[in-house]
Amino acid sequence: MEENVRERCPTGIESLDNILNGGIPRGNSVLITGAAGTGKTTLSIEFLVRGALMDEKGLYISVTEVSEKLIENMITYDFFSKSKIKEKIIFVDMPDIYNELSLNRLRFSLEDINLIIEKIVDIIKRNNIKRVVIDSITSICYRLQTEEKIMEFILKLSKELSELGCTTLMVSELLPTAKGYSQYGVEEAIADGIILLGNLERKGDLLRTLRIVKMRGTSHSRATYVLDITSIGILLVPLLKGGGETQL
Amino acid sequence: MEENVRERCPTGIESLDNILNGGIPRGNSVLITGAAGTGKTTLSIEFLVRGALMDEKGLYISVTEVSEKLIENMITYDFFSKSKIKEKIIFVDMPDIYNELSLNRLRFSLEDINLIIEKIVDIIKRNNIKRVVIDSITSICYRLQTEEKIMEFILKLSKELSELGCTTLMVSELLPTAKGYSQYGVEEAIADGIILLGNLERKGDLLRTLRIVKMRGTSHSRATYVLDITSIGILLVPLLKGGGETQL
Amino acid sequence: MEENVRERCPTGIESLDNILNGGIPRGNSVLITGAAGTGKTTLSIEFLVRGALMDEKGLYISVTEVSEKLIENMITYDFFSKSKIKEKIIFVDMPDIYNELSLNRLRFSLEDINLIIEKIVDIIKRNNIKRVVIDSITSICYRLQTEEKIMEFILKLSKELSELGCTTLMVSELLPTAKGYSQYGVEEAIADGIILLGNLERKGDLLRTLRIVKMRGTSHSRATYVLDITSIGILLVPLLKGGGETQL
Amino acid sequence: MEENVRERCPTGIESLDNILNGGIPRGNSVLITGAAGTGKTTLSIEFLVRGALMDEKGLYISVTEVSEKLIENMITYDFFSKSKIKEKIIFVDMPDIYNELSLNRLRFSLEDINLIIEKIVDIIKRNNIKRVVIDSITSICYRLQTEEKIMEFILKLSKELSELGCTTLMVSELLPTAKGYSQYGVEEAIADGIILLGNLERKGDLLRTLRIVKMRGTSHSRATYVLDITSIGILLVPLLKGGGETQL
Amino acid sequence: MEENVRERCPTGIESLDNILNGGIPRGNSVLITGAAGTGKTTLSIEFLVRGALMDEKGLYISVTEVSEKLIENMITYDFFSKSKIKEKIIFVDMPDIYNELSLNRLRFSLEDINLIIEKIVDIIKRNNIKRVVIDSITSICYRLQTEEKIMEFILKLSKELSELGCTTLMVSELLPTAKGYSQYGVEEAIADGIILLGNLERKGDLLRTLRIVKMRGTSHSRATYVLDITSIGILLVPLLKGGGETQL
Amino acid sequence: MEENVRERCPTGIESLDNILNGGIPRGNSVLITGAAGTGKTTLSIEFLVRGALMDEKGLYISVTEVSEKLIENMITYDFFSKSKIKEKIIFVDMPDIYNELSLNRLRFSLEDINLIIEKIVDIIKRNNIKRVVIDSITSICYRLQTEEKIMEFILKLSKELSELGCTTLMVSELLPTAKGYSQYGVEEAIADGIILLGNLERKGDLLRTLRIVKMRGTSHSRATYVLDITSIGILLVPLLKGGGETQL
Repeated sequence: MEENVRERCPTGIESLDNILNGGIPRGNSVLITGAAGTGKTTLSIEFLVRGALMDEKGLYISVTEVSEKLIENMITYDFFSKSKIKEKIIFVDMPDIYNELSLNRLRFSLEDINLIIEKIVDIIKRNNIKRVVIDSITSICYRLQTEEKIMEFILKLSKELSELGCTTLMVSELLPTAKGYSQYGVEEAIADGIILLGNLERKGDLLRTLRIVKMRGTSHSRATYVLDITSIGILLVPLLKGGGETQL
Repeated sequence: MEENVRERCPTGIESLDNILNGGIPRGNSVLITGAAGTGKTTLSIEFLVRGALMDEKGLYISVTEVSEKLIENMITYDFFSKSKIKEKIIFVDMPDIYNELSLNRLRFSLEDINLIIEKIVDIIKRNNIKRVVIDSITSICYRLQTEEKIMEFILKLSKELSELGCTTLMVSELLPTAKGYSQYGVEEAIADGIILLGNLERKGDLLRTLRIVKMRGTSHSRATYVLDITSIGILLVPLLKGGGETQL
Repeated sequence: MEENVRERCPTGIESLDNILNGGIPRGNSVLITGAAGTGKTTLSIEFLVRGALMDEKGLYISVTEVSEKLIENMITYDFFSKSKIKEKIIFVDMPDIYNELSLNRLRFSLEDINLIIEKIVDIIKRNNIKRVVIDSITSICYRLQTEEKIMEFILKLSKELSELGCTTLMVSELLPTAKGYSQYGVEEAIADGIILLGNLERKGDLLRTLRIVKMRGTSHSRATYVLDITSIGILLVPLLKGGGETQL
Repeated sequence: MEENVRERCPTGIESLDNILNGGIPRGNSVLITGAAGTGKTTLSIEFLVRGALMDEKGLYISVTEVSEKLIENMITYDFFSKSKIKEKIIFVDMPDIYNELSLNRLRFSLEDINLIIEKIVDIIKRNNIKRVVIDSITSICYRLQTEEKIMEFILKLSKELSELGCTTLMVSELLPTAKGYSQYGVEEAIADGIILLGNLERKGDLLRTLRIVKMRGTSHSRATYVLDITSIGILLVPLLKGGGETQL
Repeated sequence: MEENVRERCPTGIESLDNILNGGIPRGNSVLITGAAGTGKTTLSIEFLVRGALMDEKGLYISVTEVSEKLIENMITYDFFSKSKIKEKIIFVDMPDIYNELSLNRLRFSLEDINLIIEKIVDIIKRNNIKRVVIDSITSICYRLQTEEKIMEFILKLSKELSELGCTTLMVSELLPTAKGYSQYGVEEAIADGIILLGNLERKGDLLRTLRIVKMRGTSHSRATYVLDITSIGILLVPLLKGGGETQL
Repeated sequence: MEENVRERCPTGIESLDNILNGGIPRGNSVLITGAAGTGKTTLSIEFLVRGALMDEKGLYISVTEVSEKLIENMITYDFFSKSKIKEKIIFVDMPDIYNELSLNRLRFSLEDINLIIEKIVDIIKRNNIKRVVIDSITSICYRLQTEEKIMEFILKLSKELSELGCTTLMVSELLPTAKGYSQYGVEEAIADGIILLGNLERKGDLLRTLRIVKMRGTSHSRATYVLDITSIGILLVPLLKGGGETQL
């Protein structure tokens, strides 16, 4: 037997790292997927902040929210250090990248895709980034539309980011009753991992849940966990099924 | 721990403000979403009237109803003060804005979108508006159609309104058995909050329900409440699940 | 508290007027919506005939049935007075309006819509009409197709009819298992009221049901009633749920 | 009370005439709708043959089956008199009509529709036809496609046939799990009546069922009946619901 | 009563012939329809081989499988006589027919359809074929696409084959959870018969099932049978419903 | 009885070979189909590695993952011999084939398809390959799109690979709640076999399952097995159904 365990990028969310046997295999591009309100952005930001506290630099590419408002919403957590965030995390608004590249058309071509990837790679290299969040990949896909272009985009981007040693979270927006793990179905096939966030109705309340559906390069639990957003960050507890609840 | 609580815009609907820990984070754009007859317009108008009673000026942009009829339908509530309404709330028919801007085509371009946003911003600035209702965002989206344009529109509008200190309710029309929280799916990803209004069949009657699915910048209950429309305004009571009922 | 109750247009169907606290708020445009065979046309005609007996003149715009056959089918009710009907109700075949306006294309433009509305308004003014039935609005929408045009059409028509003091029933055709309250989804958002007719399987038989989903300008019951078509007209009785039945 | 009962066209299927209070109101166009194998063609042919035995002449317009094979399949019933059929029923293959009219395009225009209707009317007049079967209306609709054209076609055809005193069965093909009563949804709105044929799983066997969903001009039962195809023709018996069965 | 029983083409599968009261009415075109793995090809080949053993010549038109591999897969059955097969059954690859006719476009026109039918008829006449299998009709329909062309194709082909005295099985590919009996819905309306093959989950295993949904020209059982593929050919046994099973 | 058992290609996964009565009939093209995270890639790689250990050369065509990362993820299994893999398995990135052939368009023509097949055949011939994995066929189909082209592609490729004596696994990506066994429905009709991988919820955990839906040329179990990914490779155990589980 050849011993070979891939290096990990610990998320810093302790319970999540336990489920992943130490963290996300470094270099993986992982889909964080779920409906509105299930905690995708919260998890992604904690991933970057925990990285910053471990002195890994992070990049947050925001497509659906103005990044200023985002930062404002972030600083309600105990473990947030405003100075660390400023020093270690770079926030970029995707529309600004589009503007810089003069991409003002609504549908992107393969050439446009290459330009965008180059631009992102450039930011990463210049800043020695090790953790990337794209919030959301779905919003970028709206401008690609066809499965082939989405495949090209995610495949190339993942390859480049992996070669740069970056571990990446790609936020994916689902309808509450979506059939797959992603808007176009392609994203889930190409991603190295899928972390599914969901809702669970219990006694009139709506719990958040997390399940790791897929993670290349490591064994992992595939059970469902309840996800709690607390002032000290995200906590995961195994879901013990009782009565009166419905998975949504 | 850095203490940082975002300023609130109290809706004035006491039970709703309690669930929101004091109100909507000021500057947020919130989707009020639900099927026909679930109380979206009623809630939105009470939000403006309660604001008027607190001396905050409001703007009601009506797309699906002639605003004259709207006012007529409003004044059946005890807390309505006709003079306050006239003084503090401005009613605008969206078709009039279209006419003023000579937008008589059925599908809008990115340029048209910018013109509409400028026009709305102009009204807000000139009147020192602090609360905005767009009834409905869905009806405007019908003229945008593609996800990219809808994303552009809501993202830009939200940004502008937020910078002007406006808290905004965007009414979203759902089919009774809609799969998501919005007609195109994009609205729910970009909105800062989602308040979902629904129906609950109980013993042959049809109750109205409310659930806060998402609200950036505050913690909040995600439970389902029964929504009662009374002569003293909207009341919310926790839903105690009994027998013989079906969530619709 | 400012006392303000909107004037009513009693449907003349006693049990329905009770549920509506006196009738439809005068000037409202109400969607009568349901699958084939649920009693939409029967209810609409009784609304006109009861109006005629109260000396209010009515207009029946027929799109899906030749109006001659319609009248023939009508006169099986006890309360029908052939002379009253002839004197007080005008029957118009929509295809005749199209012909008169030389609208022989299959898809209408915004200009065509305006011509049709003008023509209807003209008939109403010349005959002092106070009650209008359009059977069906769905059939007209087939020639509009896009949400924007349907919105324009219903919004403008409702406004004009309301200003003329007309109370209007717009018949809407649903598939038996339709997801919304209307074919295109737009109709239900713009209508001032929605009366939903349905089917209920009980012990092998198929009962008709009625529910008021929405009615601007009045409070109303939202319960489900069983609708009986009798020789003395429509009767509504509260639905007492027993065993062995399925809402369709 | 003005006594007014519309003249009936007895189907000759005794149990069906009972449910219809004497038969189909003469001049009505009735949709016979159901999935493959539910007995639509069998019912339609018995309607014509029973008419022939009452000396009413019939027209069978075949679109989906070569009429020669059809006649061959028919003569397994006891009540069939080959001579009566030859004398009283005319069989026409729709493709032959298309050929005669040189309609070799796949999509018909409004002008084509008028030519087809004229041709059918011509056959009816020359042969003094009183009962018409179109098997199937769905197959003709495939060449019309849009709701507007289908509406035009069925509306005009129904009007012409009614004025000629013809009672018409329009066969409509449903998918086994169809949501509506017809392929395009339009057919069911315009037809004067809808007779729905279905399947019922009972103890591993598949029963045929019949329900009259709608019939203008008469009151009628809306219960579900079991339809038996016997050598003496169609028999209907009320469905007594037991255990172990599923409506398909 | 005129005695008239249509001549039969016994399938040679004894239990199937019993259900059909002696076999398929000669000249019928029957849809063999079901999901992948339900036994469509196996049943069709046994039909030809059993015919060969009765000295009726057969034609197998293969669209989805190279016919060489097909024969190789066939000869695992006890009743197969390689010499009989070679002598009595002709295997034709549909792509070879396309090539011969120079039909290299992806969508066929009405003219192309006629050429294909002529070619098939020619093979049948020259070889005195009495049994035909088309595996699959669905794969040919992919190149027709519109309902009108599919209707034309199947109607004409069925007519020609019937006049030549051929009994035909048309294999139809369904999705496991298809709503109808065929891919486009048209096939099931035109076919003279429908034999539906399905799956039934029983205690963790997946049984094959068979039901005759429709068969023009004969009465037949409509019950569900379990289909067993054994070394002596297909066996059908009535389905006795127990617990722990789900129809798929 | 003519004894005729087709030669087998043992997968090397012992429990799977048992279910298949010795392995996959040599020359078959088998769909490995399932949602993200169900073990498709893991099974396919073990098939190649087990072949390598039996000295059969393998080809892995990667479309959705960079093959370097793939190898890195592979070597966590006990039975992996890095040297054997290097010697016996060739890894090819599909995008590299596209580049070599200058196929930079997003939709492929029939000519392009032929070029790709030629290229693959060339690699196989030059390297004496006996086992092929295409991961995924779905990703190639995205560039074909129409059923006709997908049919052409898989039919031709299967034929060529079969003639070269290759046994092929074609990975197919399903949505978690897909209705068929493949993305376009065509793949499952043409493949010689279908191995369906799924998920089963049991007590909060998510088990992997395997079922052989179809396999031409051999009898086989159609039961559902639980699939375990262990350090000594894939293990299959019969699924014993208990309580508290849901097939997904």
